[in-house]
Amino acid sequence: MTVDRLKALEMHRRSKGKIKIYPSINIRDEEDLAMAYVPGSIHAANEIIADKSMTYEYTGKGNRLALITDGSAVLGMGNIGPDAALPVMEGKCLLFKLFGDVNAFPLCISSQKADDIICAARLIAPTVGAINIEDVVTPRTFTVVRKLQESLDIPVICDDQHGSAVVVLAGLINALEVVGKELEDIKIVIFGSGAAGIATTELLLYAGAENIITLNSSGILGPENPKMNYIQEELSVKINPEGISGGLEEAVRGADVLIGFSGKGKFSTDHIRQMNSRSIVFALSLPEPEIMPEEAKAAGATIVACGLSECINAMPNLHAFPGISRGLLDVRARGVNNNVLIRAAEALASVVDRRRLSENRIVPPLFSDEETPRVAEAVAQAAIKEGLALIKVPPKQVYDETWQRLYGGHMARL
Amino acid sequence: MTVDRLKALEMHRRSKGKIKIYPSINIRDEEDLAMAYVPGSIHAANEIIADKSMTYEYTGKGNRLALITDGSAVLGMGNIGPDAALPVMEGKCLLFKLFGDVNAFPLCISSQKADDIICAARLIAPTVGAINIEDVVTPRTFTVVRKLQESLDIPVICDDQHGSAVVVLAGLINALEVVGKELEDIKIVIFGSGAAGIATTELLLYAGAENIITLNSSGILGPENPKMNYIQEELSVKINPEGISGGLEEAVRGADVLIGFSGKGKFSTDHIRQMNSRSIVFALSLPEPEIMPEEAKAAGATIVACGLSECINAMPNLHAFPGISRGLLDVRARGVNNNVLIRAAEALASVVDRRRLSENRIVPPLFSDEETPRVAEAVAQAAIKEGLALIKVPPKQVYDETWQRLYGGHMARL
Repeated sequence: MTVDRLKALEMHRRSKGKIKIYPSINIRDEEDLAMAYVPGSIHAANEIIADKSMTYEYTGKGNRLALITDGSAVLGMGNIGPDAALPVMEGKCLLFKLFGDVNAFPLCISSQKADDIICAARLIAPTVGAINIEDVVTPRTFTVVRKLQESLDIPVICDDQHGSAVVVLAGLINALEVVGKELEDIKIVIFGSGAAGIATTELLLYAGAENIITLNSSGILGPENPKMNYIQEELSVKINPEGISGGLEEAVRGADVLIGFSGKGKFSTDHIRQMNSRSIVFALSLPEPEIMPEEAKAAGATIVACGLSECINAMPNLHAFPGISRGLLDVRARGVNNNVLIRAAEALASVVDRRRLSENRIVPPLFSDEETPRVAEAVAQAAIKEGLALIKVPPKQVYDETWQRLYGGHMARL
Repeated sequence: MTVDRLKALEMHRRSKGKIKIYPSINIRDEEDLAMAYVPGSIHAANEIIADKSMTYEYTGKGNRLALITDGSAVLGMGNIGPDAALPVMEGKCLLFKLFGDVNAFPLCISSQKADDIICAARLIAPTVGAINIEDVVTPRTFTVVRKLQESLDIPVICDDQHGSAVVVLAGLINALEVVGKELEDIKIVIFGSGAAGIATTELLLYAGAENIITLNSSGILGPENPKMNYIQEELSVKINPEGISGGLEEAVRGADVLIGFSGKGKFSTDHIRQMNSRSIVFALSLPEPEIMPEEAKAAGATIVACGLSECINAMPNLHAFPGISRGLLDVRARGVNNNVLIRAAEALASVVDRRRLSENRIVPPLFSDEETPRVAEAVAQAAIKEGLALIKVPPKQVYDETWQRLYGGHMARL
């Protein structure tokens, strides 16, 4: 969807950042002041001195997320730096709030060294219940997320990695049900080896896929590829069991699923024609897909999805990240793993009513009332089961609250 | 003022951090989504790529402040660390919002090394229009603030230093008018050489005071003091022109003004009795003053103030920091200096109607409607005059807006 440039600028000027800080209590007199600041907050501080986990009870830590970027891979724009990334990050924080009721704030980092991003994230970690690493270029994003996950006691997520992988797995679960194929049996081609391509390959392998070919701009990841970064090299030994050489041309022959995280126009109708029957094409490049859905359909694809919010089978990450972060925060998760992500994808897939499941409805509508609570509940339960959660509240109770907060209150329907 | 512990804990539990993120626009459909996130925010990003200062125009940077602490000197509690400092920081952010309409968020740092605090602040600086270093122990707070002021293009303030100094200078301007003395002629004793004591000494010297004696717990700062940190050593050569040796006992003889930033009970009635006639005592220790106001009065002090919000001549920093930060942000200040702080103090002093000025009214009431706008306006004008401001909007226009925002809207009167 295009938007008028001047209208967009006017909105940005007026909304002054799209998010703001708002008091959750008021101060009307000296008594309120004493309660909210000194000595009131000293009572809360004393509880935390006695038991550090009380930060979740008496502060906003448990519903606060830092959205950290260096602006090195901002969607559709590339390396625009931390200043220009700010309006995009503020937009993402707005989505965290409106779709997940998460208090996310941006931190745009004035360095593009992995060590600096890691350092900043570690240093500010006591303040937040979760960190989302956003729009950092590959392989830096993997370096940062891995090192932070190892060293912090809060979940470190990366929507570009985890969100994309969860949405693709969810869409694929439903698409395979429609075309009557099984994940174990199919051949999947993933074109694009940035954060999303790598993480999606990893999650699909973990979920049971056995034949995946992943490519970067120099061809299939493997011994013959001249230009792989360390994370692509790591992945290359787990994929391509048939040992196919070459590029997309060679990879796509007989494939059941073609997934793109690359760029506008990268898939031709010839590529689609070489795929297996009842083929599935996810053209997820933003802001424009690898192939227009109508073209892919005309060339024989049975199911087509893209990343734009207005198209049929719209698969932006917005389906996943609000629910994932909501669920992790609600059980005070210390981390996240692939099992949690798979439960998130299954929950997301299940939001589509089985009676409505079809070629043109493999994911829920973006403005579904059920999506965030159901993904969040699955994530919360999985985190508890995996031993990753600090609290073990019966999910039912938590999600009654979430529903009320999101949909009974003034939040998502201001 | 004491507050009931269980009531305070209950309030902290319910308010979940006292501040939250709130959307300044809503998203109801795909069109809103495109406007707020992609591609809408890409238009804003493009403007910033062309001209970095457009972050002030199209994002929330210009009204956003990072409140950074390592939890090493949290008021009245000392070194409680970053986790326990969080409820206190959230309280301060609430005050920034309710009294100054500044979007302040806390960053509690998991290290107590000056270099780490500096590193974190520098790295996140693109996100914010100002930084406030809060509750960091002396001399670390001076190291951090100085190095950040040298290297960043946004104002780095420290309420413990600058806020305290401005409130004391404002109170002193009015108190001296009441007792009919001049700043140049008087002898001032400052007991306590932490952030507030040092910064207040510096600002009073800059404002024209000529005879100040500043002490730490080992006595008067000077060649005979066995226990001075580097910032106290620096200051020691600018003070004590009479070369007095010893401790508070010796310093206070014949003093016109006694200011305490130390601890409960540090001033005795004997100390007060040794002061000059028409003496002024600011007992600013929190949460309990160096001497109770009634006692100081009984011992002969003409004017007594303390830091508690409920006492006569209440002088908490809340008088100053909302207006200082509001003014700096409104003119997109690149920094702050002593001239700006002196204008802030003069403006704060002037809020007290001259017809009401008396021994018991040297500062405005804490819930004054005029305080923040008038301090802010003075700070904004001073920053423009000092060449520290990016924009040169006629202050009148800015402060019509501030008044409307603070007092015409729903903000301070939720």
